Amino acid sequence: MNFVQALRTAIGDRAVLTEAADLAAFETDWRRLHSHKAVCVALPESTAQVSRAVALAAQAGVSIVPQGGNTGLVAGGVPVAGVRQMVLSLNRMNRILGLDTVGDTITAQAGVTLRAVQDAAETAGKLFPVSLGAEGTAHIGGVISTNAGGIQVLSYGSMRAQVLGLEVVLADGRVWDGLRGLRKDNTGFDLKQVFIGAEGCLGVVTAAVLRLQPAVTARATAFIGVGSLEGALAVFSALRRQAGAALTMCEFLTRAAMELGVAHMPGGRLPCDAPAYVLAEISAHAAGCGPNETLLAGLEVLLEDGTARDAVIAQSERERQDFLRLREAVPDGELIEGGAVKHDVAVPIGAIPETVRAIEAMVAARFGDCRLNIFGHIGDGNLHVNVRPPAGQTLADLTDRKAAITEAVEAIAVARGGSFSAEHGIGQMRISGMAAHKSEVELTLMHRLKSAFDPDGVFNPGKMLPPEGA
Amino acid sequence: MNFVQALRTAIGDRAVLTEAADLAAFETDWRRLHSHKAVCVALPESTAQVSRAVALAAQAGVSIVPQGGNTGLVAGGVPVAGVRQMVLSLNRMNRILGLDTVGDTITAQAGVTLRAVQDAAETAGKLFPVSLGAEGTAHIGGVISTNAGGIQVLSYGSMRAQVLGLEVVLADGRVWDGLRGLRKDNTGFDLKQVFIGAEGCLGVVTAAVLRLQPAVTARATAFIGVGSLEGALAVFSALRRQAGAALTMCEFLTRAAMELGVAHMPGGRLPCDAPAYVLAEISAHAAGCGPNETLLAGLEVLLEDGTARDAVIAQSERERQDFLRLREAVPDGELIEGGAVKHDVAVPIGAIPETVRAIEAMVAARFGDCRLNIFGHIGDGNLHVNVRPPAGQTLADLTDRKAAITEAVEAIAVARGGSFSAEHGIGQMRISGMAAHKSEVELTLMHRLKSAFDPDGVFNPGKMLPPEGA
Repeated sequence: MNFVQALRTAIGDRAVLTEAADLAAFETDWRRLHSHKAVCVALPESTAQVSRAVALAAQAGVSIVPQGGNTGLVAGGVPVAGVRQMVLSLNRMNRILGLDTVGDTITAQAGVTLRAVQDAAETAGKLFPVSLGAEGTAHIGGVISTNAGGIQVLSYGSMRAQVLGLEVVLADGRVWDGLRGLRKDNTGFDLKQVFIGAEGCLGVVTAAVLRLQPAVTARATAFIGVGSLEGALAVFSALRRQAGAALTMCEFLTRAAMELGVAHMPGGRLPCDAPAYVLAEISAHAAGCGPNETLLAGLEVLLEDGTARDAVIAQSERERQDFLRLREAVPDGELIEGGAVKHDVAVPIGAIPETVRAIEAMVAARFGDCRLNIFGHIGDGNLHVNVRPPAGQTLADLTDRKAAITEAVEAIAVARGGSFSAEHGIGQMRISGMAAHKSEVELTLMHRLKSAFDPDGVFNPGKMLPPEGA
Repeated sequence: MNFVQALRTAIGDRAVLTEAADLAAFETDWRRLHSHKAVCVALPESTAQVSRAVALAAQAGVSIVPQGGNTGLVAGGVPVAGVRQMVLSLNRMNRILGLDTVGDTITAQAGVTLRAVQDAAETAGKLFPVSLGAEGTAHIGGVISTNAGGIQVLSYGSMRAQVLGLEVVLADGRVWDGLRGLRKDNTGFDLKQVFIGAEGCLGVVTAAVLRLQPAVTARATAFIGVGSLEGALAVFSALRRQAGAALTMCEFLTRAAMELGVAHMPGGRLPCDAPAYVLAEISAHAAGCGPNETLLAGLEVLLEDGTARDAVIAQSERERQDFLRLREAVPDGELIEGGAVKHDVAVPIGAIPETVRAIEAMVAARFGDCRLNIFGHIGDGNLHVNVRPPAGQTLADLTDRKAAITEAVEAIAVARGGSFSAEHGIGQMRISGMAAHKSEVELTLMHRLKSAFDPDGVFNPGKMLPPEGA
């Protein structure tokens, strides 16, 4: 019996796709940059079925590519070239298994979407705070395996901070049941930490217990115009001092980025006139403790000393949604105008201004006709640095210079103690960065971890790690 | 040249202790329950010296016991019986290496005390939020290696949540430099997570970058009398809903625990008359957002519906300190009255009442003359369950029943999805719990992790893990 037949027997005929037309969507990444053939797509319905599928693939020497909502930006969840591989989709494992309103936890299978978790929390009067553009499609298993971030990390942390327990299918098909919902548990090595952010290279996350927060009952949201990057940093510091963890969003946008968004947003216009902008939000859990007062108290000083040139506070939930839409319109506008060579770097927060200036100077000197679109999560030191083709050219015209641009942008961030991939991960697309920027010691430890958990290299080959000794 | 001579040559004569009188304090644990011989104590002054000491010990087949402030409660930082071992004390690596008030980070060597980090943060107008009884003595390296918790975990998380970067000396003496201060960095496996809470079994933490918070400018603190454990849970839920992350402390104490504290505290008296108590604190970062108002709003409902029997709000910082002292007087009073068989369990928060009742019933049925002293961090589901000897007896009289008591208490917590060691860790003293309560799969993965990072078993033998296949 060949592998596909054995798999069909084990998990059911309809759970194994082999027709080219059925496979295409699973073989191609979100950004449509990578597409390679898989032997089949497995769609198990239970942890036991995942276990059987993994064990069969391992025995047959077929590699396993775990896939969530397939919204990743670095092609970490789709096949690579030249490998006999199966896509293991968690699509059908989409049940919420429990919600505890006293312990503030939710337990979900890996294929539940991020939005479904947010919605279930909201229905129970709670908040699940991780929020990102692809949340309607991204799976919980995927956002855990990529340690996804988003716009509220500065207050609530990224996915790692939300995970209390995991269930994982291991490389030999055995199941590790770590589905505990505890706030404290110091009993041996904290194994879940190994699988979070591991991009499916060490095991398949099949379910998780996640932490919930009390519902937010009031928000104050403002677009604040500033004169410079230093001004944006000063706004962040002042609001953070004023609000602490209640400062739940602090986004930075250059004027060029804002104009790109406004140009392609029906009825869009700049909220005020300034060289750069901060979009900040303060949240509160009770009427007695007004976020508006906190925001106003912070803004008063900033407007007086000239750090803030102008500020517009949302006067209604509709205005707040408009503000958020304008933020989201920036990458949309960029795409409509032809896309960009994209980067997702992080630096220590205080190093943001010099990093941006160094990138601007580098692009001007070496790729002078290219246009920059920079925005990011200032409270996390996370900048999305997007290098757009020269006016009148397309992204394809940048093909020859793409690797050089990326190398130069990443090097500037790393030289300042930064990261060349803040929240998007490595996948297939950032492996050259791993080889360039990670020490030999660090790569050795990562390979040892890989060998300890997946000795035969069953999971997600060609992702994350450059070949040993490369 | 023998090992000690080689070590002296490498790190200096005065950095190697061999006299019995000098060794004693390093060989004996904080609770004075364990004391075994070491070949020597090494006191390196730099990461390079730690590296050399580890490499020499590994070559000579001498095991390494990393030691911080030696305040651990499970004898994880002192020698075990029957092993040729060196205590590697980080005492002399006590420098703060940097403090970034924009990025809100502090960088410290492993031997800096927790209090010194708190003080440095305060001087800079910031807060380092991890706080525990032994903070004046405990080292940063130790609290990282044990993932220490304390009384503010429900708002700020335990040590793991504070660590942004680590420097670690590996089993072969090489140094992993992961001293980055980034909020987001998804570049490969997050290696620091492997070393946090690893109890020195995978490497020696020599320095860390830690996250700081904005200073707290106002606090409201209350002792709240409740009628039952369910009432205590309701107080927690109501205050958490009202205050969110601003609820920075929520401790539960039985009346018996409070009376034990009051009895041995000069001028001590119960804050109000009730069957059980909650000590809660709400913190704020700015005058505009009063914690007193938030606390009062929460208490109003609770007093009206009878959940809270009575409540006393601290009217001054002095009264607040009195409240905190009363909380700390509980374990002190217990010690003065002869100590207890101590446990540190966690359960899902909603399972606290039934867990406590099950423990009370079990002790009454099987160890009926013993007295219980239970208190804990209700917002973390963390209970300190201390079984005191019968009136008129000493702790020594419980020796024969100690193992049976511990087994029974731990089993009750684990059966409810709980942990048998919430924040104290495993060390030498809880290994039987690992063998009893961890699955074979989980123990296998932990042994694989150990082998991957410390293949020759150089670090901290006889700690954390039961022998493989035991």
